[in-house]
Amino acid sequence: MARDPRYDILFEPVKIGPVTAPNRFYQVPHCTGMGWQRPHTLAEMRGVKAEGGWGVVCTEYNSIHPSSDDLPHPSASLWDDSDVRAHSVMTDKVHAHGALAGAELWYGGIRTANMMTREVAMELDSFPNSVGHPFQTRAMDKSDIKTFRHWHRRAALRAKEAEFDIVYVYATHGYLISNFLNPRMNTRGDEYGGSLVNRTRLVRELIEETKDAVGDRCAVAVRFSADEEIGEDGVPIYGERREMFEMLSELPDLWDINIADYSLEMGVSRFVKEAPLEPYMSFVKSVTSKPVVSVGRFTSPDTMVSQVKRGIVDLIGAARPSIADPFLPNKIKEGRIDSIRECIGCNVCYSGDSIGVPIRCTQNPTMGEEWRKGWHPEKIAPKESDSRVLIVGAGPTGLEAARALGERGYDVMLAEARRQLGGRVTAESTLPGMSEYARVRNYREQELQGLPNVEIYRESHLTAEDVFATEPDHVALATGASWRQERFDGETYVSVAAPGTSPEILTPDDIMGGAMPSGPVLVYDEDSYYLGGVIAEHLKLAGHKVALATPADTISDWAGKTSERWRVRTHLMKLGVETIVSHSLASFDGKKATLRCAYSGVKKPIAVASVVMVTQRRPNDALYHELLASVDGQIEKLPFTLKRIGDCEAPAIIAAATYAGHKYARELDASVDRDQPLRHDRIDVGAPSASTPVTGAV
Amino acid sequence: MARDPRYDILFEPVKIGPVTAPNRFYQVPHCTGMGWQRPHTLAEMRGVKAEGGWGVVCTEYNSIHPSSDDLPHPSASLWDDSDVRAHSVMTDKVHAHGALAGAELWYGGIRTANMMTREVAMELDSFPNSVGHPFQTRAMDKSDIKTFRHWHRRAALRAKEAEFDIVYVYATHGYLISNFLNPRMNTRGDEYGGSLVNRTRLVRELIEETKDAVGDRCAVAVRFSADEEIGEDGVPIYGERREMFEMLSELPDLWDINIADYSLEMGVSRFVKEAPLEPYMSFVKSVTSKPVVSVGRFTSPDTMVSQVKRGIVDLIGAARPSIADPFLPNKIKEGRIDSIRECIGCNVCYSGDSIGVPIRCTQNPTMGEEWRKGWHPEKIAPKESDSRVLIVGAGPTGLEAARALGERGYDVMLAEARRQLGGRVTAESTLPGMSEYARVRNYREQELQGLPNVEIYRESHLTAEDVFATEPDHVALATGASWRQERFDGETYVSVAAPGTSPEILTPDDIMGGAMPSGPVLVYDEDSYYLGGVIAEHLKLAGHKVALATPADTISDWAGKTSERWRVRTHLMKLGVETIVSHSLASFDGKKATLRCAYSGVKKPIAVASVVMVTQRRPNDALYHELLASVDGQIEKLPFTLKRIGDCEAPAIIAAATYAGHKYARELDASVDRDQPLRHDRIDVGAPSASTPVTGAV
Repeated sequence: MARDPRYDILFEPVKIGPVTAPNRFYQVPHCTGMGWQRPHTLAEMRGVKAEGGWGVVCTEYNSIHPSSDDLPHPSASLWDDSDVRAHSVMTDKVHAHGALAGAELWYGGIRTANMMTREVAMELDSFPNSVGHPFQTRAMDKSDIKTFRHWHRRAALRAKEAEFDIVYVYATHGYLISNFLNPRMNTRGDEYGGSLVNRTRLVRELIEETKDAVGDRCAVAVRFSADEEIGEDGVPIYGERREMFEMLSELPDLWDINIADYSLEMGVSRFVKEAPLEPYMSFVKSVTSKPVVSVGRFTSPDTMVSQVKRGIVDLIGAARPSIADPFLPNKIKEGRIDSIRECIGCNVCYSGDSIGVPIRCTQNPTMGEEWRKGWHPEKIAPKESDSRVLIVGAGPTGLEAARALGERGYDVMLAEARRQLGGRVTAESTLPGMSEYARVRNYREQELQGLPNVEIYRESHLTAEDVFATEPDHVALATGASWRQERFDGETYVSVAAPGTSPEILTPDDIMGGAMPSGPVLVYDEDSYYLGGVIAEHLKLAGHKVALATPADTISDWAGKTSERWRVRTHLMKLGVETIVSHSLASFDGKKATLRCAYSGVKKPIAVASVVMVTQRRPNDALYHELLASVDGQIEKLPFTLKRIGDCEAPAIIAAATYAGHKYARELDASVDRDQPLRHDRIDVGAPSASTPVTGAV
Repeated sequence: MARDPRYDILFEPVKIGPVTAPNRFYQVPHCTGMGWQRPHTLAEMRGVKAEGGWGVVCTEYNSIHPSSDDLPHPSASLWDDSDVRAHSVMTDKVHAHGALAGAELWYGGIRTANMMTREVAMELDSFPNSVGHPFQTRAMDKSDIKTFRHWHRRAALRAKEAEFDIVYVYATHGYLISNFLNPRMNTRGDEYGGSLVNRTRLVRELIEETKDAVGDRCAVAVRFSADEEIGEDGVPIYGERREMFEMLSELPDLWDINIADYSLEMGVSRFVKEAPLEPYMSFVKSVTSKPVVSVGRFTSPDTMVSQVKRGIVDLIGAARPSIADPFLPNKIKEGRIDSIRECIGCNVCYSGDSIGVPIRCTQNPTMGEEWRKGWHPEKIAPKESDSRVLIVGAGPTGLEAARALGERGYDVMLAEARRQLGGRVTAESTLPGMSEYARVRNYREQELQGLPNVEIYRESHLTAEDVFATEPDHVALATGASWRQERFDGETYVSVAAPGTSPEILTPDDIMGGAMPSGPVLVYDEDSYYLGGVIAEHLKLAGHKVALATPADTISDWAGKTSERWRVRTHLMKLGVETIVSHSLASFDGKKATLRCAYSGVKKPIAVASVVMVTQRRPNDALYHELLASVDGQIEKLPFTLKRIGDCEAPAIIAAATYAGHKYARELDASVDRDQPLRHDRIDVGAPSASTPVTGAV
């Protein structure tokens, strides 16, 4: 299909200092939970993005010295020659597709406790570690600043040696360099503190020194915040930022613009929609002649064009959209914009680095699996047989399995009990703020339209008999899971209904099905991710008095991994939802719920008319057991292979559901070693050197 | 020195199935934050323990299949041949010292979300993940149990191939196998659930199958809990455990006995002293003829002898004491029991695995550095010059620096302003439960008695003039840090005294110095480790009404890493201390403190007469600046080298302090590359094969 000419502007090359980006698609530095620990996994993933049309592909944060060590969060590093070798694998792959490779140099300061290296972190002053480790920094004296600049230069030279085209001075996100700019933190009495000139001195020196070191061949970019303080969303508090920016505006070759509020900059879609940074940084291009890149979870090519035409940015920065769809640029280029797999803004990608495990993506199940499993986001092996596959259930798992099997060329029957496809994402997307979750369904439903070998049967609730009647070769049950009315007490599921009572206890399925409980309502959250808070919000907006209680010490605890926990709680409290932590639900009799303190065991009554239990889920696997029972449990006697996939096997997050569907499709008719299902980046102490992976050979 | 013959019994060999332990010192499996990620670091560390006299040295938990993946907590693994190669480095090192090597096989079940491998975890039933990840397990059917047994056997065979001498069936700690035993969790209707015979079936099968697979050459050990439920400390709730144990008692070659309450089994010294397991497992040896090992943070040889003589255990199990002193057995053997570096029970070792970084130890600064830095716990390079070293301050840092420099043969002057040595550990050890922290001082003070080249000057508060007068070649300032009266608001230190008031605001230094504030008291904790809780307890025991407030969502948040957080809060609540979370201290006027909700900003008054600020510390570095000022800041013009070390450089935990002192001593007169201070276990993608580390060569 031909590209709409209105998107041509996105494919113009952009000169960045001594190098030229082939187009305006720019994958900004983003963490991956891989870093120096997983060089092969990482390089292949970045290479696939270049293949997908990103004109610039950057690394994550590269520690420039062991005194900036972020473990358990796996950063990249530029410490020694082995780093150069590791990065070279990545830059080779990026260059092979005509893209530029960028390296972000990083020094954590107040944000790293250096738990692996045990080096002392340096900062403006003797500060406490800002992520809660009981380690303070050393106040930098002038010789420390000199040493720091030396390390920065040294790392820049290594980046050049590794064939990077762009090298960053990373002056934002609360790390060391940005703190020098901060008028409140920087109380130094020397030439690096006080006046604006003094506080910008370090950044200026680093830009100049980086240019001096690598500027003959590499562009020097600065990552910089356009505003100074966190305020109300959409209302920048510039402080001295604009003046500061004017002082530096012509120094680097490229500006990569961020904002002060990280939870807005990379906000979840529940709270933050496309292009939220524009009000903060629309002044930037009027002050500099240098190219400007910024992010905004851009997935709409029209928004992108508008950003460029209106002079907001020159390059379309993306982290999450490039994760959800590494081929986003090529899809626009080739006029296939309907095939873009749009980021849903769930931030599960970010949870990888937060937790210290490799990145994953809800929309893109191949993310992080490019090297480990050899999965490509847009290519899949053709079918190996003329088998017919029946998939029962068209939630995220069933849809993805059908789509990927359809791509492989299999005849697929996709049966869904309801009229609407999408399963849990369709249901959840009706809740406040959650509309973008429907993109998980929309992308797949769209793709299925182009796959005539996939037949969709709606409103088809299949019995075992029905399954046999379709005469499939393979059956995948993707029938999802249902929320339980009980709670798990650590050993077993228990009812919370007080003995002899039948109180009004609902589940999220009831609520998403349209039920409205009697008020006041207690939402009881043992799931501890986003849904408890969303249900509480939904009921509050419906006019109820709502309390949200959890046995965890924190509201929406796991949402801390996706960087939304703080927003969830403040948002709920602003709405007037009462929040109760560290209490489990002991019983409910229809009039009062009894909560029990997790520490003291002390009971606390709360007068509510109904309870919504957001606890655990029960796999909808009745059909599986019915089918098994038909052959006395001897699965090999069935006339088809039978598998449960996704929540029907093991309820989990949506990213696990799409992954399970994709995996099923990849592995059909393939030989999979169940004992060793995985290769992964690891040290092999004694492998014969012939089988040791070497640069370029992996 | 000759060994006291009463300890001879500890050096008797013990037959364990087909192998024989050379003595009774048994390093039980313990995590290290290394696992498959750090094979060289790990192997060297375990080898040093064998060198130090441990007759058996075990691994940490070895995942037997990718569907049991504990990342971000780095377990070991027995998945493939590269695991065999990695473990072989360890077993070679252990065998070189005549010790046995043991491998613990492990399957997490409910406790792993498999965040790296993305495999579905299997369990008894569809359970929620027990550490809070939103991933449920798959209920195991009979074919899953068969597969699981196959994986267990396969891992056992790999362990044998890696030359292990003991292979574990790990049936405790809430992991999969132990859950089969649990009468409440195991509600299966098949032959693996219900009766005692059924619930013990899996363990029995695994023991038999492991014996069948590797029993010709390897002993099979079972790690097993002696009690069933957590009750009051020291009062076992056996349930069916004794009956269960009787059924299995003769099956394995060795019993490794644990208890149900992990927070007691590996309790911090604040709550749990030596040998706490005895009341739980004293029945064990009366029921089995097989050797029994158990733990108890044993550091006293007399306690050990008593345990053996009274028939409690055959082998002295140890994790923490072997970390604090890898040479503990040899020190007893050689009659050097005064030189034992006794574990202080702080559990900082455990924080490595909790956080996902390599292990460290407060008492033993070489722990984890055996390979990375080539540090040996008992050997250190002799001095390289006749330099005289002045160390100012005899806290943990100064004492360790003096001790290690003394060992090297340097002439050391150690000046301490107070009469007592020990600095912060001396002060903190006077607080409730904290007495064992004094061991940091006691070990070093004891060792210094044998080092005539170290002179200690007590009650010597040195001025810059005094420093020059001693004519040292090197000066290390280990003058520690002082607690601040202010708090850090995220950007700067602010006073909490309401404007125009001079309220009673104290610091932990005041309290440890003997001050008793007016009541009621608010202890305000921004440090979020143990001290806030300890101070609150101390004041409560003194009869005050006490509230403990913190801006964190959790009381003693970081103590979660050391597995004591839960005990801290329940303990304080039982004592009657009011606990307030998610509130920062906005101001205090002498009558009321105003707390501010971290989420809503809503202010909350609390009537108190005094406040103790447990916030941040200020390095005591006045002498450093005085010395620098004497040469106009040109440090190279001083007639000696000058360094700040430990809290005087950057306040942190005690483990960082002893490490800093040790590092200073190691690096004096040594050439240290400040740019590349570290080697560490990492993948090198393209190193020439000649420099690739190979088995046995590292």
